[in-house]
Amino acid sequence: MSLFIDMDEVIADTYYKHIEIYNHEFQENLTLEDCWGNEVWKAVPEDRQASVRNHANTIGFFRNLKPIQDSQRVLKELSQKYELYIASAAMQFPNSLLEKSEWLDEYFPFIDWKKRILCGDKHILKGDILIDDRSYNLEHFDGRSLLYTSGHNIHTNGFERVSTWQEVADKLL
Amino acid sequence: MSLFIDMDEVIADTYYKHIEIYNHEFQENLTLEDCWGNEVWKAVPEDRQASVRNHANTIGFFRNLKPIQDSQRVLKELSQKYELYIASAAMQFPNSLLEKSEWLDEYFPFIDWKKRILCGDKHILKGDILIDDRSYNLEHFDGRSLLYTSGHNIHTNGFERVSTWQEVADKLL
Repeated sequence: MSLFIDMDEVIADTYYKHIEIYNHEFQENLTLEDCWGNEVWKAVPEDRQASVRNHANTIGFFRNLKPIQDSQRVLKELSQKYELYIASAAMQFPNSLLEKSEWLDEYFPFIDWKKRILCGDKHILKGDILIDDRSYNLEHFDGRSLLYTSGHNIHTNGFERVSTWQEVADKLL
Repeated sequence: MSLFIDMDEVIADTYYKHIEIYNHEFQENLTLEDCWGNEVWKAVPEDRQASVRNHANTIGFFRNLKPIQDSQRVLKELSQKYELYIASAAMQFPNSLLEKSEWLDEYFPFIDWKKRILCGDKHILKGDILIDDRSYNLEHFDGRSLLYTSGHNIHTNGFERVSTWQEVADKLL
C-alpha cells in the first residue's frame, strides 16, 4: 500500500515559522491563537501582508523549519508498513527545492530519494492514501484522503481529519 | 488527457553532454557512434568510467544541456492539446533540482510550475501517456508508454518507440 505525505504544515512547521519571522521583523507578539482559522498573512495588518507572503521566497526559509511533533517517530514506523512517499508542491519556489531535499536528509534520512516527490498539481499522484493540509490537494485524490489540521484549515469540512501524528499512528498502524 | 514527458535524453541532451565533457577532460574524440547501444560511461576505458559517472554531480551539468531537436516546438503544440507535465527522476541529484527548474524556465517557459514534477520512482504517476527513455519507468505505468530512443536503449524491445519529436507529433497531434 502506498502513502503520500505532504511537507509544509504536515511534517514541517511553516505556520509557526511565519509567525516567528513576523514577530522578529516587526517586533510584535503575534501568537498562534491570533492566527487560528486563517493563513498567517491574513492575520496581520494589511500593509504587512506582502512581507509575510514573501517569506517563502527567502533563502533558508524551508531549510530552517521544525519538524511537526512526533512526525519523525511515526513516519519511521509508517515507512516499515507502507510504501511511504513525501509529496510536496514545491515547484512554485525554486529555491526551496534543494532546501527541502537537505531538510529531509537531516530529519527523515530513512526516506530515500526514490520516495521523494517535488511537484505542482497533486492530481497526478496514484496511490492509496494522501495526508495533506490543503483541501484542493485532497479533492482530486482517488484513494483515502486525510486532512492534517493546520491553523489555516480548522474551518474546512468534508474530510477525514487528523490533528496529531499520534492520531495518524492510531489510524494507520 | 494527461501526458508526462521525461527530461534527460528526451528533451535535454545529457548523452551528448557526457561525450563532450569526456572529450574535453581527456582530450579524446569519442563520438556518438562509439557509444551507441551503451551508456556513455560503459563506452570508455575502465579507469575513466567513474569520472563519467560523476558528471551528473557536477555543478552546472543539468543547467547547460541542449534541448533535443524539435522538442520545444512539439511540446508547445502538445501543451495546447494535453495536460502536459514534465516528470523527471531528479531527486538522486539534489544540485540538479534548481538547475532543472531554471533550464525549464529558459527553454520551456510555457510549462508552468504546477506542471513540473521532480521525483524518484515514477510508479506514482497517474495519467494517460508517458514518454521516457528508461524501460523501468515505462513498465509500471498504467497508460500508454512511449520509449524515446536514446543511445543507451536502442536494443530495448517490447515498447512503442519514438525516435524524434516529429514522430511524437505525428502520433499524438
